Amino acid sequence: MQHAALTVDPAFRIGEVDPRLYGSFVEHMGRCVYTGIYEPGHPSADGEGFRGDVSELVTEIAPPVLRYPGGNFVSGYRWEDGIGPRENRPTRLDLAWRSLETNQVGVDEFTKWARRTGSEPMMAVNLGTRGIDAARNLLEYTNHPGGTYWSDLRRANGTPKPHDIKLWCLGNELDGPWQIGHKTALEYGRLAAETAKAMRRVDPTIELVACGSSHQKMPTFGTWEATVLTETYDLVDHISLHSYYDPLPEDRASFLASGVNLERMVEAVVATADHVRAVGRHRKRINLSFDEWNVWYQSRFGGEASLDWAEHPRLIEDEYSVVDAVVVGSLLISLLRHADRVRIACMAQLVNVIGPIRSEPGGPAWRQTIFHPYALMSRHGRGQVLRIEPTGPVGDTEAFGDVPLLDATAVHDEESGAVTVFAVNRDQHAPLVLDLDLRAVPDLVAGEHTALFDEDPEATNNAERPDRVTPRTLPRVRVADGRVSVELPALSWNMIRLR
Amino acid sequence: MQHAALTVDPAFRIGEVDPRLYGSFVEHMGRCVYTGIYEPGHPSADGEGFRGDVSELVTEIAPPVLRYPGGNFVSGYRWEDGIGPRENRPTRLDLAWRSLETNQVGVDEFTKWARRTGSEPMMAVNLGTRGIDAARNLLEYTNHPGGTYWSDLRRANGTPKPHDIKLWCLGNELDGPWQIGHKTALEYGRLAAETAKAMRRVDPTIELVACGSSHQKMPTFGTWEATVLTETYDLVDHISLHSYYDPLPEDRASFLASGVNLERMVEAVVATADHVRAVGRHRKRINLSFDEWNVWYQSRFGGEASLDWAEHPRLIEDEYSVVDAVVVGSLLISLLRHADRVRIACMAQLVNVIGPIRSEPGGPAWRQTIFHPYALMSRHGRGQVLRIEPTGPVGDTEAFGDVPLLDATAVHDEESGAVTVFAVNRDQHAPLVLDLDLRAVPDLVAGEHTALFDEDPEATNNAERPDRVTPRTLPRVRVADGRVSVELPALSWNMIRLR
Amino acid sequence: MQHAALTVDPAFRIGEVDPRLYGSFVEHMGRCVYTGIYEPGHPSADGEGFRGDVSELVTEIAPPVLRYPGGNFVSGYRWEDGIGPRENRPTRLDLAWRSLETNQVGVDEFTKWARRTGSEPMMAVNLGTRGIDAARNLLEYTNHPGGTYWSDLRRANGTPKPHDIKLWCLGNELDGPWQIGHKTALEYGRLAAETAKAMRRVDPTIELVACGSSHQKMPTFGTWEATVLTETYDLVDHISLHSYYDPLPEDRASFLASGVNLERMVEAVVATADHVRAVGRHRKRINLSFDEWNVWYQSRFGGEASLDWAEHPRLIEDEYSVVDAVVVGSLLISLLRHADRVRIACMAQLVNVIGPIRSEPGGPAWRQTIFHPYALMSRHGRGQVLRIEPTGPVGDTEAFGDVPLLDATAVHDEESGAVTVFAVNRDQHAPLVLDLDLRAVPDLVAGEHTALFDEDPEATNNAERPDRVTPRTLPRVRVADGRVSVELPALSWNMIRLR
Repeated sequence: MQHAALTVDPAFRIGEVDPRLYGSFVEHMGRCVYTGIYEPGHPSADGEGFRGDVSELVTEIAPPVLRYPGGNFVSGYRWEDGIGPRENRPTRLDLAWRSLETNQVGVDEFTKWARRTGSEPMMAVNLGTRGIDAARNLLEYTNHPGGTYWSDLRRANGTPKPHDIKLWCLGNELDGPWQIGHKTALEYGRLAAETAKAMRRVDPTIELVACGSSHQKMPTFGTWEATVLTETYDLVDHISLHSYYDPLPEDRASFLASGVNLERMVEAVVATADHVRAVGRHRKRINLSFDEWNVWYQSRFGGEASLDWAEHPRLIEDEYSVVDAVVVGSLLISLLRHADRVRIACMAQLVNVIGPIRSEPGGPAWRQTIFHPYALMSRHGRGQVLRIEPTGPVGDTEAFGDVPLLDATAVHDEESGAVTVFAVNRDQHAPLVLDLDLRAVPDLVAGEHTALFDEDPEATNNAERPDRVTPRTLPRVRVADGRVSVELPALSWNMIRLR
Repeated sequence: MQHAALTVDPAFRIGEVDPRLYGSFVEHMGRCVYTGIYEPGHPSADGEGFRGDVSELVTEIAPPVLRYPGGNFVSGYRWEDGIGPRENRPTRLDLAWRSLETNQVGVDEFTKWARRTGSEPMMAVNLGTRGIDAARNLLEYTNHPGGTYWSDLRRANGTPKPHDIKLWCLGNELDGPWQIGHKTALEYGRLAAETAKAMRRVDPTIELVACGSSHQKMPTFGTWEATVLTETYDLVDHISLHSYYDPLPEDRASFLASGVNLERMVEAVVATADHVRAVGRHRKRINLSFDEWNVWYQSRFGGEASLDWAEHPRLIEDEYSVVDAVVVGSLLISLLRHADRVRIACMAQLVNVIGPIRSEPGGPAWRQTIFHPYALMSRHGRGQVLRIEPTGPVGDTEAFGDVPLLDATAVHDEESGAVTVFAVNRDQHAPLVLDLDLRAVPDLVAGEHTALFDEDPEATNNAERPDRVTPRTLPRVRVADGRVSVELPALSWNMIRLR
Repeated sequence: MQHAALTVDPAFRIGEVDPRLYGSFVEHMGRCVYTGIYEPGHPSADGEGFRGDVSELVTEIAPPVLRYPGGNFVSGYRWEDGIGPRENRPTRLDLAWRSLETNQVGVDEFTKWARRTGSEPMMAVNLGTRGIDAARNLLEYTNHPGGTYWSDLRRANGTPKPHDIKLWCLGNELDGPWQIGHKTALEYGRLAAETAKAMRRVDPTIELVACGSSHQKMPTFGTWEATVLTETYDLVDHISLHSYYDPLPEDRASFLASGVNLERMVEAVVATADHVRAVGRHRKRINLSFDEWNVWYQSRFGGEASLDWAEHPRLIEDEYSVVDAVVVGSLLISLLRHADRVRIACMAQLVNVIGPIRSEPGGPAWRQTIFHPYALMSRHGRGQVLRIEPTGPVGDTEAFGDVPLLDATAVHDEESGAVTVFAVNRDQHAPLVLDLDLRAVPDLVAGEHTALFDEDPEATNNAERPDRVTPRTLPRVRVADGRVSVELPALSWNMIRLR
């Protein structure tokens, strides 16, 4: 049997996990909002029309931030359409997804619901068709105590205290030609800078995220970030990254190594941000907000041109397999390994639309396979990320050449002393023994081993079999002389919680 | 007597005439709309306030498309001012023509009237002072069936079914420094691209026209088109051309050769469009929309600075001569010769404002001289344009050097087999014999010969003598052995319909 | 005792003083408007809520123009907020000064008040967050007689006749990164050009001021002006200059020589404007509008970040010393010396905010030290500015090297023949004898000598001692054989009115 090894020593750290690494994303797209989180007629609906069953599953994940309301949607959005008495709200053509937007959920409802589930909103402003004035007014509406036009309107609309939203996206994917109001890097950088400046005047306590590239294959990747950060450096806190991974069935080995791609993107953006910092003689560092990521069967999507006007149509409701869940776990491991610079990450999206949670109108809600590594890492993957210097065998992949079969990271909880190791075995056919050197933390004596794997790696959960795939508890792990070996099943995601 | 010759052979074709080549243009300028097509108190007014006498003359021309509402006017226009109850519509300063705009006619009234006369509207959006949002809202108002804010407003305003306007201009003459919200080529190209993208999302079935140069003498002519098409190529269908010809009395020979200038412009824009196609590796071809052309006594116009605030003032109400009508006929011949790429052309404008139709408030409407070649070619100039390879004598001109005295084209109606030859004799003093070789179409045996000419080439029509100048029927033409010779009077426009 | 000399000869002229050189500035900032010029509950308030005591002091200065409503304020301003019934006007966040703007004073109230004090408004449009449409609508509101939407709204709001505002600023300090909606030179130049064009169409009789640099130390100083004027030359009349002088106590000699700096800026901008004129083959000359200048204890101001939301907070209410007043007099002398090109200048600001007038809510209003040279020069410094070729001793300064101790100019009133000499003695410790050669104007026989100086050069006026510092009348001056010598006290500003 093959072996891989890693060393756990709290003296060697990458950085503290920003809990916002476990964020998610709620876009007005498909059925994420309507019949996703919100469905007034649903048996489980609360007084505000939000589904209790879905909210419960959200609480299980406990995403610290929820990006809202888009996504491509926001680039044509009038936020004012979503406030005030519901019967007066206009129905709009959402040009991003060619859907009908009834505006029954807006910033007030969303923010309150997010807070009820324990999440903070991460609000995006429209820099596609709008600019400074719409952004500053929205921020006045959400964050100003009162006594002004927009803050008094919020009060009149039933929210006496400010929503006090701290995290804001300066538009969405403006580098993409598909975006309503797409911009060149310079056009966007200038608009983002001036919008950021005005927003900081409204509320200097906010954090701002500038749009980076929509994905690594954009022809402007890298140069976009350099130009945008040159124009906005001192006015923003984060630069965004987006990446989706398509489970091409004929090359599963490459798909399992998606984290390699994600890390390359992170490292490239860090390099660009630090380059701009050096050239501009700036003091602070720009951090990374990986605010759209997931597995997405993108090749199954016909594109915006395939869509026709409908209210909350079924869009990209991918049904995830065990393989997909292992990849999601691996992507989160990659993000944790860059916790020193990646401060925010949002799995896209929360419900139905390539979501960890699925729901049926009037029917049940359930956990997809990807829900499990995501929820478990969100709950247990907090603390200091350690440098673990893993060694072990590699496997060949079409896309990336030799890639380690073991993909792992470890998190140290300074208070309790507990260490949690997250590990993926990329070997599709054989288990892998992971040898842990724990001599630097002699207090650790034993641990629980939870894993996600299946005889049928393409197995999925759905309305009929919502629990077909769930994490399994493996034999308890016992440390001896500061060492322990754990067997990771073939094609598996694993969590080993050592105390 | 001098002779010129041409050969008619349906095997040699330039292309099919797009009927939209006979379009016209209704701008909110001077008295084109108010007391032109629209005058509620007029004895002939229909229930909607449109003049019946003018409508009848429009029907005689049968322009397949009518560009609306500008022209320079559109670059400062709020289309929302022209919808809803008339008593609530604001009076605005029209900065283009320094006129007062009462907004009593708007998109609803115009579109319905155009359809009643058998025309399609060719609607322009304001890219001078406005952008994406105003354009997409207008398109939603006119073309979306219902169930959304703007489409329901159209329904509430009395139009339950969509106007379904298919042809749209992305602004007007934005290359002109006189334009409200004038733009550089790059500024315009970017705005046009993003507006086009959003509009296509609202309705993917529309055709879009990007602004080309306002005339050939613009310092940016050519480079403007190249930049604009580089930014918009895949998002637009047509590029516009505008050209007016001033009848300088001291050089009538050059004026009669205006078509040479028009063709140079067409060929230059074709070259530019195909250059951008090659560089961008594009598949489709961009076609030409010659959406403002006419004879215009421009030297008599004092410019915008000469104007002062008035409601529908008398602006550039040129009274056209026989010479002007011959030139108009020649310009249409030039357009037909480029029917492979010129798909749309709009004589500017329809009524009163350098229009083929004139009307007096409370008084009569009549046909100007230019009405006749325009109306006859619109009705009979359809089918396949043939390559006719004319030969014959030339005449010297100040502006263009040697120019053929014969300007001609031929159109073949595949169904009936009829061939119509349009021909201008540019010789001001002598008739010209046109020798037609018809051996390739042996079915043609005879034809009617209609011509416009006069002993006094400066003769005009006006309210007192509305029919001073009309087409004359000349002796019937008889084909013998596939040949026939037709005498074209000095300084004349001719139509020979052979069957 | 040291001597300096100058020659008065009306044959040698610089140019006629444009009275607008003595303009001032009313910004919605701090307490300039509210509790400054406007305070409805004040015992002296007139029927419109404006303070009578302040208005009286304004009338004493008689500033021919009053720039309004900003300054930085205007770059986020919606002018529509300030019209109509006061109870409907929204309270806004003013992002420039992080203050609450109640909009109780707007364009109607301000214009009427300015006219009552004998001043003309110099209105600024918002080119920070807004553009062409907002500007043209405002101009239609203020200047169009009636019969249109905006002009009729003005009439409905109680002003039947147009305000007829002739002087307009195209935005404010758009070169400053602190500005809401800051722009690059090209961005601003383009927007200013298109806004100017539309505004001129609304009212061709207006004069327009384009934004120059916010101060000489801006990294874009010079190149900004060149680019902006290249884009706007034929569409604007003036280019603006702003400069404030900080009374650094440890280097009073340099501070007293501030006029040297002001003149360098004027000369640099003249050079740039004339360079653009030459390159562009333009005919007219662009004049200078020095529309923000004053002494300002800028180092005492914590910056915008130090501010928090409040209604008319106490902002930069500097208390001016005798030294400051002497410098203000010297700066006005510098401006007069460039009367050939500087046609407008605005001391910033009129009341409370670094103002010559101070007022307390519910309390008194008084004249600061700087009020005196400003008011006296405004009243007496009209006519033809003469070239006087002064000679005399110099003093060393840290900032400018050797600087003449005498700073002087002379103004000739062609009607009365009177000559007024304004002179500053920069020597802090010794008087300076000024020898006047008046042989070219034999009619001048005697004069009054008024001076501002004090044993304590740091003496100030305040609520307790509003008249601690006032001008003093010195012994009458008598001309003999066309010559007279006048003793200028140490560190003094002087006015010698010869008849």
